[in-house]
Amino acid sequence: MQNAEPADVLDARFAAAKEASHRLARATTAEKDAALQSIADLLVERIGQVVTANAADLEAGRAAELGDGLLDRLKLDETRVRAIASAVVDVISLTDPVGETVSGRSLPSGVRIDQVRVPLGVVGAIYEARPNVTIDIAALALKSGNAVVLRGGSAAERTNAVLVQVLRDALDRVGLPADAVQTVDDFGRAGAQHLMRARDFVDVLIPRGSARLIQAVVTEATVPVIETGAGVVHMFLDASAREDWAVELVENAKVQRPSVCNALETLLVHRDAAERLLPPVLARLEASGVTVHADDRVRALHPSALPVTDEDWATEHMSLDISVGVVDSLDDALDHIRRYSTKHTESIVTNDLGNAERFLNEVDAAAVMVNASTRFTDGAEFGFGAEVGISTQKLHARGPMGLPQLTSTKWLVRGAGHVRA
Amino acid sequence: MQNAEPADVLDARFAAAKEASHRLARATTAEKDAALQSIADLLVERIGQVVTANAADLEAGRAAELGDGLLDRLKLDETRVRAIASAVVDVISLTDPVGETVSGRSLPSGVRIDQVRVPLGVVGAIYEARPNVTIDIAALALKSGNAVVLRGGSAAERTNAVLVQVLRDALDRVGLPADAVQTVDDFGRAGAQHLMRARDFVDVLIPRGSARLIQAVVTEATVPVIETGAGVVHMFLDASAREDWAVELVENAKVQRPSVCNALETLLVHRDAAERLLPPVLARLEASGVTVHADDRVRALHPSALPVTDEDWATEHMSLDISVGVVDSLDDALDHIRRYSTKHTESIVTNDLGNAERFLNEVDAAAVMVNASTRFTDGAEFGFGAEVGISTQKLHARGPMGLPQLTSTKWLVRGAGHVRA
Repeated sequence: MQNAEPADVLDARFAAAKEASHRLARATTAEKDAALQSIADLLVERIGQVVTANAADLEAGRAAELGDGLLDRLKLDETRVRAIASAVVDVISLTDPVGETVSGRSLPSGVRIDQVRVPLGVVGAIYEARPNVTIDIAALALKSGNAVVLRGGSAAERTNAVLVQVLRDALDRVGLPADAVQTVDDFGRAGAQHLMRARDFVDVLIPRGSARLIQAVVTEATVPVIETGAGVVHMFLDASAREDWAVELVENAKVQRPSVCNALETLLVHRDAAERLLPPVLARLEASGVTVHADDRVRALHPSALPVTDEDWATEHMSLDISVGVVDSLDDALDHIRRYSTKHTESIVTNDLGNAERFLNEVDAAAVMVNASTRFTDGAEFGFGAEVGISTQKLHARGPMGLPQLTSTKWLVRGAGHVRA
Repeated sequence: MQNAEPADVLDARFAAAKEASHRLARATTAEKDAALQSIADLLVERIGQVVTANAADLEAGRAAELGDGLLDRLKLDETRVRAIASAVVDVISLTDPVGETVSGRSLPSGVRIDQVRVPLGVVGAIYEARPNVTIDIAALALKSGNAVVLRGGSAAERTNAVLVQVLRDALDRVGLPADAVQTVDDFGRAGAQHLMRARDFVDVLIPRGSARLIQAVVTEATVPVIETGAGVVHMFLDASAREDWAVELVENAKVQRPSVCNALETLLVHRDAAERLLPPVLARLEASGVTVHADDRVRALHPSALPVTDEDWATEHMSLDISVGVVDSLDDALDHIRRYSTKHTESIVTNDLGNAERFLNEVDAAAVMVNASTRFTDGAEFGFGAEVGISTQKLHARGPMGLPQLTSTKWLVRGAGHVRA
């Protein structure tokens, strides 16, 4: 296939996805649910094939000296494949957003207008390493009536090729167009770049992965992007913070799952609470294996901490590391957050109502919290049932995205020969 | 000012707008309404200054041999300035979208989540020739708590400089930051290009103007864009269309205001209705001064029509010209529309319920109509009170945009020491 002109081959695939998206947009919920069941069934049928392809990817990854974390994210064994299939079955039970009437009224003239949910059309997904995303994102896109074009990263190329074939064959089995699932992986980086500029065919791009990947997509794409994201997440312990809450909230936010975007990265403490709160909080963190990077005022109280650097404040560690600083006031905490926040999730621990309200009002982030763990910013926790990603941008979707965020709307206007006066 | 490094001067302005946007975001509705009244008052006070600056722009425009249409759009006399001031006063009566709770619930753990509307932040507007847009877009942005950066096109540069000063002084008069209104006009095209890439400061770009302008912004911008739009608007007269409705709807859609985006550009007629409908419809259009560009089957019935070209089908005439063709079926009409539609507004005239439903379901456009004039796609007609533009994209906003479309949301999360299980 690489012998043909890449742009022409890719455009043909994108056009096929667009054409298939028209059929998907009209598919009933029952048809789409049958497709999801078919995907789950076929995944289980082809476990051997998936695991074999994955073993080849893992071997190539080891030869290329990929890190252990990356190799673990890449790995699919039988248990993991069954878990992916089971997650697809879970999508069946979610409410189909397509066709929902969002608003509607009769105009003074008697013309009736109704705003109804419709699929976006063709969703492009650009992600790295985790081959489960191939199935996850396709399942969510299909349930919401969209076709998908996938770019899964070269490390998982063999695995993803098998998974894409599973998706296409599963659609075909239930009489829906296989062309609703396309890949650009066989064209490598050129495929990704062509996808990012395919405005005629692709309605939205959703990058999922490292800050570097997302930045590249945002900068290079002409297709509209939903930025998902990096989380340099802060928690501010105000002067009035309860010690027991502070200890539990900081530990939960930092330690429960340090590799995800809603995990805590930076802890700020009001100077009037530093002596009271820092010893128990930092003792709990260190008992959980966390490495503390701290400013001088923290280190005066807790000399075992490493010195924090300016780069640390701006870093999403995604590991058991935390940056800790003392601030003189709520204003200083707000200034620090404004400077370093990636606008994902920010939290205050306080018993001061005025400070709580100021924090909620003045912090600009997808989720702003009082006395709650930052780990709550999550589609499942918010009751969405599934999560496409967490948007850190302000347009279209902000915060955890569920199925409705994979739709647009259109206005249906019904008259009886009505003309505008 | 052009002696300084342009990028530095512009970045300083954008940063000032961002800083001011934080104050605007917290402004009460009463404060914002006072600012709007202040803008209206100051506009009227400075009518002489506005008209003088506009006369200089008009003189330069005539020297540069701008067309009569462009010169008319550029022109501001006392009556027009008063009308702009009056439109600003109208915005006072619109509901402030900021602070509206869009959704909210208690999670099973007892954590409370509320999704509330917040301003987008800094709105960049890029437009051409019509200086009234300077005031209109600033008024709507300010009411929804946003700062603005304006790029109004070189033809109106002197007029816009006066209007921007009116906006800034009006904010200052009521104690809001003048820096919430910025311009890049004094840096010409370089200013526009820098604005399009100011991701650190500008949250959204709204281009308003020609298809060429919008295409340039969509292609060059890295700031997220809301595409507003060009309308190659179709009406399909189905075999069962009522003659009286067909005549009135086509005339209203084409003739009432041919220079706007919801005006009709292409008329398609089912072959079984061509002999019945085309003579009265085309007679009415020609009586209204419309030039008919038609395919061979239309011309066989109506020899005075000019031949239609392939380019005509793809053209938004914005004039008293219409492209007319005969199609063999609803499917052929849908195919034609899919090929040439700019996804703004499409309408069918029919008495066949099945065909009406197919048209509503299968046409992909911001507004899809049955037996209604395409002129209804309009913020004021839809009851929004004001219109930021008509979005022809699928992300964030689709169709007429009111004040809520100039906002985002954030999630407020309130716990009592809640950690995630």
